[in-house]
Amino acid sequence: MGNVIDFDLHAANQAGEGPVERRRRSGGRAAERQRTAPRGSKYLNLVNPMARSAVLSDDALEAVHQASLTILEEIGMDIILPEARERMKAAGADVTPGTDRVRFDRGLIMEMMASAPSGFTMHARNPARNVDIGGNNLVFAQVASAPFVADREGGRRAGNQEDFRKLVKLAQSYDVIHTTGGYPVEPVDLHASVRHLDCLSDMVKLTDKVFHVYSLGKQRNIDGIEIARIGRGISMEQMEREPSLFTIINTSSPLRLDGPMLQGIIEMSQRNQVVVVTPFTLAGAMAPVTIAGAVVQQNAEALCGIAFTQMVRKGAPVMYGGFTSNVDMKTGAPAFGTPEYMKAVIAGGQLARRYNIPYRTSNTNASNTLDAQAAYESAFSLWALTQAGGNFVMHAAGWSEGGLTASFEKFILDVDMLQMVAEFLTPLDASADALGLDAVRDVGPGGHFFGTPHTLARYETAFYSPILSDWRNFETWSEAGRPTTYDHANRVFKEKLNAYERPPIDPAIEDELDAFVARRKQEGGVPTDF
Amino acid sequence: MGNVIDFDLHAANQAGEGPVERRRRSGGRAAERQRTAPRGSKYLNLVNPMARSAVLSDDALEAVHQASLTILEEIGMDIILPEARERMKAAGADVTPGTDRVRFDRGLIMEMMASAPSGFTMHARNPARNVDIGGNNLVFAQVASAPFVADREGGRRAGNQEDFRKLVKLAQSYDVIHTTGGYPVEPVDLHASVRHLDCLSDMVKLTDKVFHVYSLGKQRNIDGIEIARIGRGISMEQMEREPSLFTIINTSSPLRLDGPMLQGIIEMSQRNQVVVVTPFTLAGAMAPVTIAGAVVQQNAEALCGIAFTQMVRKGAPVMYGGFTSNVDMKTGAPAFGTPEYMKAVIAGGQLARRYNIPYRTSNTNASNTLDAQAAYESAFSLWALTQAGGNFVMHAAGWSEGGLTASFEKFILDVDMLQMVAEFLTPLDASADALGLDAVRDVGPGGHFFGTPHTLARYETAFYSPILSDWRNFETWSEAGRPTTYDHANRVFKEKLNAYERPPIDPAIEDELDAFVARRKQEGGVPTDF
Repeated sequence: MGNVIDFDLHAANQAGEGPVERRRRSGGRAAERQRTAPRGSKYLNLVNPMARSAVLSDDALEAVHQASLTILEEIGMDIILPEARERMKAAGADVTPGTDRVRFDRGLIMEMMASAPSGFTMHARNPARNVDIGGNNLVFAQVASAPFVADREGGRRAGNQEDFRKLVKLAQSYDVIHTTGGYPVEPVDLHASVRHLDCLSDMVKLTDKVFHVYSLGKQRNIDGIEIARIGRGISMEQMEREPSLFTIINTSSPLRLDGPMLQGIIEMSQRNQVVVVTPFTLAGAMAPVTIAGAVVQQNAEALCGIAFTQMVRKGAPVMYGGFTSNVDMKTGAPAFGTPEYMKAVIAGGQLARRYNIPYRTSNTNASNTLDAQAAYESAFSLWALTQAGGNFVMHAAGWSEGGLTASFEKFILDVDMLQMVAEFLTPLDASADALGLDAVRDVGPGGHFFGTPHTLARYETAFYSPILSDWRNFETWSEAGRPTTYDHANRVFKEKLNAYERPPIDPAIEDELDAFVARRKQEGGVPTDF
Repeated sequence: MGNVIDFDLHAANQAGEGPVERRRRSGGRAAERQRTAPRGSKYLNLVNPMARSAVLSDDALEAVHQASLTILEEIGMDIILPEARERMKAAGADVTPGTDRVRFDRGLIMEMMASAPSGFTMHARNPARNVDIGGNNLVFAQVASAPFVADREGGRRAGNQEDFRKLVKLAQSYDVIHTTGGYPVEPVDLHASVRHLDCLSDMVKLTDKVFHVYSLGKQRNIDGIEIARIGRGISMEQMEREPSLFTIINTSSPLRLDGPMLQGIIEMSQRNQVVVVTPFTLAGAMAPVTIAGAVVQQNAEALCGIAFTQMVRKGAPVMYGGFTSNVDMKTGAPAFGTPEYMKAVIAGGQLARRYNIPYRTSNTNASNTLDAQAAYESAFSLWALTQAGGNFVMHAAGWSEGGLTASFEKFILDVDMLQMVAEFLTPLDASADALGLDAVRDVGPGGHFFGTPHTLARYETAFYSPILSDWRNFETWSEAGRPTTYDHANRVFKEKLNAYERPPIDPAIEDELDAFVARRKQEGGVPTDF
């Protein structure tokens, strides 16, 4: 391919799914997005203008930072990949011969952190779906990696390709879902050796948004990069200039980075693709029982992974991931959306800002169903990550049961809540016209504003119109059978699936993609004994 | 009475409900509260250390302020009480003869605002229950004024004395509910002429917390003040030094103050009791459809009411109440916990801080049941009011259906959420011990923290233990019958009612209270034709 192309979605929309106009990229990014943005889209390119909250004083923030560096310097991390240890040694780290242990001078870590970019753009095959990461930008990614899927009729069950595809289609259906975030549910009916080929091919075809590749052995990363490149119809050189794919790198807490994760960093960072380093530091389980201690450990592990991306390639795009929460001390089960989780999210934001790199957070809850708990734990998560200045929100929609289940109904509930957050973050219009003095003069004491010109000119768009909230009066609501949010979400996800339309794609690209997947399957995919 | 007394609750607790020690007040307030605080109480005297959020720039805040003053100067308010108009005229306002219309020079308004105190203490009959209002303090009041009451078994029904008493007992049962907030449900089985006597008498006997009197004709205010005085066992002089009762003053938006409300200000402010001026400015109905415009009108009405308290008595304790929300433009029904509501709450906080007076907010939602909507609208309300620096939160627990229903289950849900907010606002311990470096050293890479000394020393109190959140795994939860938050809340409110114990009260005070109520009933209570 090698051509710089994108698609005129406006023309495509008018022409249905027929052939779409191809043209060379021209003009600035903003102009281009304008040209290709879906009509009526409202929640692209969100920014968060709110002042950030803090739970750590400046001194405490410095203490957390220094304690993390002390961990890396004195205790070190177990790095379970010889190639990674060699690269670290070459960069100046202290590798204990014959072991996995690597220790990092604090100067080395901070030197590496200094080259991590403060922001970057992730490029989608539809430029209107490009997402800016960092600064005040706020990007929502769909639920990822759930082993189970659930809807009310089908109950909770192991994931399969059909459910995978339905969830991906839903991600495409809402502009407030800016990227997918991995497989929303693990399709276990696809063999693990070729699953990534089918799934990533689906990501390209069923959506026009940025997507994620799992770091489960280097070949998957390489295949994912190639699929993203084909999907965008660009050269590898352009791919390297324009990060178009991301991977989540979880540490194996405490203080360990496993081989596939290290391979993922190497493969992605050396090609300038996006790495999101996210320790999973559950206070009281894989991290100290104190939130401050868990955040210290999170920070040590994040700094190690982020520094490694910069050892692989200076300037490679990377995010600081926070996922510290607490466990239920009665059962050891992870808890989410708790007060402790909120504090950890805000502390993580302070740290990411200290290092001036983008911050990845999550929309979490631990409920087994779509009840009030699912809503308040998610809302508390959204509260914290908004006030923390989270830039990239994984699991923003659909995450249920502490991440074990991707819920169709929860997906809709989350979309509604995300749109409310987006509306909340829209600047308040305080123009003279909005202040409404003339309207107040017109109405005067004791009147009402229902039919005034000021109201009539604005009422259709004045307020957010929620997807699920049922504001009918009690009698009308009772006559309608007393539906709950769960009922409404169940109805809406099916309606939305029925209304789904595939985004336009160049047939030549689709052919190239199919050919690549067929060839790689022919070759046997990837070994599954990693 | 006239004696300065309070009760040693510690001794009382040990002695059950028997005679309690009486003693003279001595020592500072903090020492006294310590002495009398219920053992194990955790959520008294909450403070909010978070930085406040803003939705208005400094310029926009000034524009809202000036527009409000322009309304009061040019349009004015209808003041439906001759005595109030006379007092306003005497203070320098421009009263149009033969009409209700009063206009206020902006200098007069700001002169009055300057004498409103930035904070004060509301005194309960148990000093451990005193609440500080203003500054960083955060006080939660129970749901008030719902015509209906609901629980799962009984459904939604008109309120009666039994339900009223149950809800008041629940308010007493949780420390995070700092005051009651009016009648949680209207007990329509009590005649309106004597309802306030029975209800306020119950407030004194069933709780030891600060309570509210409705401004529905001056005699009710006078009776309420006397009941509060008797309950505290103090002189009227001390009552005047120590505000012990509050009233909500709603404007009749747009731009009108009704007679009973104005009487309420006169009766309460002249005795130095607490007035909470709260316009109910629904954008698109009783206020401009723009949130900025609705906030301008809210501010004009609030400034008018607050200024009047200071005309009645300089320095009288008063709060700035915000209750601006939007309507559902399809039906005209009020919506709550929306993005527009959140912005209005934060704008109100900016205005209250500009005038340096305490800020009253609310925990709202419009759901007809205890579903996800009830939770997310409430959580969004709590998010906004916390970030806004709300000092006094009406309807903090139990408000359902846009305020039409007091829900037993929602009360428990709200208590759980309020406790989570309180925990979130508890400063994060970042001491060297909490940073946990030694614990990380002990465990090292690849271990776990479950059994470490650092964990064992802390795990029982490390995390908030929620009332309702069900964190059991899916299988265990399924075996238990898949209970939702609604199910848990239904169980908990009944358990809590069964465990209720009346707070100790001096029998002499109870006798005096009963005699007063009997006498006032004998006299026929109050006229009901106001």
